[in-house]
Amino acid sequence: MYIGRVIGNVVSVAKIKQLESARLYIVEHFDSRLEPAGKYEVSIDAIGVGIGDYVLVCGGSAGRMPSLTSKMPADSTIMARIDDFKKFREEYFGD
Amino acid sequence: MYIGRVIGNVVSVAKIKQLESARLYIVEHFDSRLEPAGKYEVSIDAIGVGIGDYVLVCGGSAGRMPSLTSKMPADSTIMARIDDFKKFREEYFGD
Amino acid sequence: MYIGRVIGNVVSVAKIKQLESARLYIVEHFDSRLEPAGKYEVSIDAIGVGIGDYVLVCGGSAGRMPSLTSKMPADSTIMARIDDFKKFREEYFGD
Amino acid sequence: MYIGRVIGNVVSVAKIKQLESARLYIVEHFDSRLEPAGKYEVSIDAIGVGIGDYVLVCGGSAGRMPSLTSKMPADSTIMARIDDFKKFREEYFGD
Amino acid sequence: MYIGRVIGNVVSVAKIKQLESARLYIVEHFDSRLEPAGKYEVSIDAIGVGIGDYVLVCGGSAGRMPSLTSKMPADSTIMARIDDFKKFREEYFGD
Repeated sequence: MYIGRVIGNVVSVAKIKQLESARLYIVEHFDSRLEPAGKYEVSIDAIGVGIGDYVLVCGGSAGRMPSLTSKMPADSTIMARIDDFKKFREEYFGD
Repeated sequence: MYIGRVIGNVVSVAKIKQLESARLYIVEHFDSRLEPAGKYEVSIDAIGVGIGDYVLVCGGSAGRMPSLTSKMPADSTIMARIDDFKKFREEYFGD
Repeated sequence: MYIGRVIGNVVSVAKIKQLESARLYIVEHFDSRLEPAGKYEVSIDAIGVGIGDYVLVCGGSAGRMPSLTSKMPADSTIMARIDDFKKFREEYFGD
Repeated sequence: MYIGRVIGNVVSVAKIKQLESARLYIVEHFDSRLEPAGKYEVSIDAIGVGIGDYVLVCGGSAGRMPSLTSKMPADSTIMARIDDFKKFREEYFGD
Repeated sequence: MYIGRVIGNVVSVAKIKQLESARLYIVEHFDSRLEPAGKYEVSIDAIGVGIGDYVLVCGGSAGRMPSLTSKMPADSTIMARIDDFKKFREEYFGD
């Protein structure tokens, strides 16, 4: 998994049936300094996030382990939210 | 998933049986600025797209979740079309 | 999938049982200009190709969708041959 | 698998159910000189490690082979600890 | 699959149960010139190799196709040995 930030959402009318109820977000990857890495991915939300949230994203077939995404074409899934990212960042680089 | 653009199709006579009815397209990857990233992939179309369309592409085993591609050697599948890309792009970089 | 060219074959005496009847080829990746990309992969042939052929290569678990490779350790499989690559290349960059 | 070092842990309140009992660590990748490679990943611990430990990390669906992680969205799993890394490093570059 | 060379082994006391009988080797990747590419991976041996051997390594879920590794967390598996690498290299670059 990697840490990223939700920076947008994707709306599409023409899509496969299994994506009809999916919430699709653009997630920017973070590097090992917890700064934007200049890479993005479109991920399916499995927990209920919003734009601006810091999240944990899981790739590959693991993305279909949550029951919500088990039938979706999920190659990248938002699995968790990091609630206090500022504090997390300080602890992470604190010593 | 990533966002890309359909830039060509691939025709092949000699192929495995499971690809006989597959529509194969060359999709150019887009970077986080929604500009061409200089990378391409050959993807199987699961929804009905045309050259020039902006699309969402899913990789790995997730590419075989649509019923159309479930028996195909799909490691990269076109899952959705972004209909108004210009508007999407403006919203995405709007503020 | 990506487009590549078969540039050699690999012969091995000591190998796992499931590779005994496999034809193993070295395939050079092509970039988005359809030029050699300086990367290679060893792929299992599922259709019957020869050295010099232009091919479509599929990665991941999708490589085990053809019946021929379903029991093989196929992480990269040659799925189709592009018969008239010169014409394909011209069409692709034609306008 | 690759060799890395546990450099932090990730705490999250809002997450999918299957991650509730998971221990999530930030693991820094090591390069072929066994030095930090400037890349990280968030991995699920399958053996019981601590911050500072040198570990072996497995990716993809293989990350769900341990019984502990078989139902988790594990795309990256800590499978083993290298106990005497200093000695390992010396042997590895010893001759 | 890719071609590499076995350059070391990894010993670990604390590991998951499924790795207890696994032989773990450090394999250096080779580039398209059959020279060391400066990348390594820790791979599970499925055939019986030694340090210095030239090998074929398979990644992803394909790594669990051999019966020996079917229950192991194998994301990278040594599937074959190239016995006369010098001759192979000459043939490969011979004309």
